[in-house]
Amino acid sequence: MQGELERALATICGEQVRLVGAGRTDAGVHATGQVISFRSATELDTAGIRRGVNALLPEDIATRDVEEADEGFHARFSATGRTYEYRIRCAPQREPLERHREHWVPQALDLGAMERAAARLVGRMDFSSFAMAGMRTTQRTVRRAELHREGTLLRFEIEADAFLRGMVRAIVGTLLWIGRGTMSEERFAAAIASGDRAGTGPSAPAQGLCLIRVAYGEASGRSEQNADDEE
Amino acid sequence: MQGELERALATICGEQVRLVGAGRTDAGVHATGQVISFRSATELDTAGIRRGVNALLPEDIATRDVEEADEGFHARFSATGRTYEYRIRCAPQREPLERHREHWVPQALDLGAMERAAARLVGRMDFSSFAMAGMRTTQRTVRRAELHREGTLLRFEIEADAFLRGMVRAIVGTLLWIGRGTMSEERFAAAIASGDRAGTGPSAPAQGLCLIRVAYGEASGRSEQNADDEE
Repeated sequence: MQGELERALATICGEQVRLVGAGRTDAGVHATGQVISFRSATELDTAGIRRGVNALLPEDIATRDVEEADEGFHARFSATGRTYEYRIRCAPQREPLERHREHWVPQALDLGAMERAAARLVGRMDFSSFAMAGMRTTQRTVRRAELHREGTLLRFEIEADAFLRGMVRAIVGTLLWIGRGTMSEERFAAAIASGDRAGTGPSAPAQGLCLIRVAYGEASGRSEQNADDEE
Repeated sequence: MQGELERALATICGEQVRLVGAGRTDAGVHATGQVISFRSATELDTAGIRRGVNALLPEDIATRDVEEADEGFHARFSATGRTYEYRIRCAPQREPLERHREHWVPQALDLGAMERAAARLVGRMDFSSFAMAGMRTTQRTVRRAELHREGTLLRFEIEADAFLRGMVRAIVGTLLWIGRGTMSEERFAAAIASGDRAGTGPSAPAQGLCLIRVAYGEASGRSEQNADDEE
């Protein structure tokens, strides 16, 4: 994605550009709210950049808007919050037309238990038990972690100052353990406290995950300068 | 689609089966409401057939339900109505995550004119001007033709006893001419009356079209015995 966008911007702006994205999106992960920053000496206006870039991008990427930012703006370090959504289709039958956007779970899930477990994630704490190895800082502040049921679609929304790499997918995989009764709520709390990734669930598949929002300037603190953001 | 389903059913039922579908779905066209009939001497119950077939089908096809039918039931000839939906994304920017389900139209459209034109399609008439050549009977009864705006998504829903092959996509392509001001409402009425496919708009792309419902037994008459249904 970054490569395609860099090539399109270089063509439109007539110079090499280096992009900074607010949040990582690994292969198969979607983003409807990604924010990218770059510097350019181009004299094109923002509407011209947007139109030109969209004309060059492949059909699976589009730019919604282009705006001029203050000198110090950095899509990643200036961000004060990120919101991810994870879509679970909880139904006996698959939904073929949604297969690239959702994770299908045919078993019944205990939503009450999943909601109570999700609530335990809110607050500032060490999220090592949901992180890939090798992160420098593992404290993050989760502001909101909610399940929304819309028919057979279960949407998990989680907002934090920043995420560790792989964190949302590990959390969802663990919440699915809770929903299926594989893990108790008490063991969930103990697994968080242990800081051990081996004690939490498998990473949920990429296609259910989507970066839906990035916030700037509203929160009290800046996010971690070295935040290794979620896929 | 039919080939995949026939193979899965043959494996599960232990015998060759011949499928009949209520409506055609050409390449790239979707169906959430397709109905298929077949005969089998299998002793499996309907739940067992559904589970077995779904386990064998590729991820882009699924069976919602399997029911026993009366002896005379025929998915195509017993059907008394079909409803298709066509999705148009009417927005300056593309929606990459919906690209396989929608037709993107960046220009502003005159929805009032499109609605008035759509209303002219309702009734029993000769739809040759929206049909591929070589149909034996070209009279059809359109019961409903409506545009629904949901944010930037424009959903066209059309219900008829049966459709001619290519009819919905030709109608949508022509309604888009109306929406862009390329064709007047008067010329639209004249184009229908002429029965000439050359006078109506180009076929709208396949990916926006979806067969969403098939009705049985509720309408006054049976559909054309030789109905060549919409793609």
